[in-house]
Amino acid sequence: MTKSDTTPVHPILVAIDIAKHRNEVLIAEPGRKRRLIHTDNLMVVVWDFAGGPWENPDSPHSHPHEQVTYIVEGEVLFFLGEEMQRLSTGDMVAVPANVPHYIQLVSSHVRLIDSFTPLRQEFL
Amino acid sequence: MTKSDTTPVHPILVAIDIAKHRNEVLIAEPGRKRRLIHTDNLMVVVWDFAGGPWENPDSPHSHPHEQVTYIVEGEVLFFLGEEMQRLSTGDMVAVPANVPHYIQLVSSHVRLIDSFTPLRQEFL
Repeated sequence: MTKSDTTPVHPILVAIDIAKHRNEVLIAEPGRKRRLIHTDNLMVVVWDFAGGPWENPDSPHSHPHEQVTYIVEGEVLFFLGEEMQRLSTGDMVAVPANVPHYIQLVSSHVRLIDSFTPLRQEFL
Repeated sequence: MTKSDTTPVHPILVAIDIAKHRNEVLIAEPGRKRRLIHTDNLMVVVWDFAGGPWENPDSPHSHPHEQVTYIVEGEVLFFLGEEMQRLSTGDMVAVPANVPHYIQLVSSHVRLIDSFTPLRQEFL
């Protein structure tokens, strides 16, 4: 996976490259790992969190990118604007552009998937 | 979940609505169910397939929407352009706009997540 540039990439090569790197860990920090793939305007990030439950939630953040989060495994408190929902395996939530949001782990491990448009360039 | 229109929706109300309907099955056909949520330009569809393995793949299809597929559970053959990959739990693949693609179930059940931009209006 390389930074996007203006060079057109043959779509099949994109697929081959993704398949080859599909298990690559792009970022691993204590307690959190992420992998991602993307097209021109769509990014999907797989997050694996460990070390839950957390005593406190993450810091609220927001971004102009639209986001949908799907919970693959585990349980979180999901804070969105002034609302909070307890989400577990199979649940999903939509985060419109610029709405502050954050999570708190309830289970020890959580895997969730964040989809974004446009690309989160800071993740590349 | 209702069809998008031009009425601005308060983002928090969107979240409440989504949480309330997060387990709703929007479409159930024999052997396949789908649920979805979306923001203005991003759609995430959860597909549950049953009745695998399939003897033959689906029909190839393509669309101008960019797509990323994540395999939550199960195993598929994923055909993209002239390429084929066997994908299982945790794998993902990117489908650029207008590239023909299709799947064939290898396991009996498969859950996969398709993210799209822009919205697949025909799914609403």
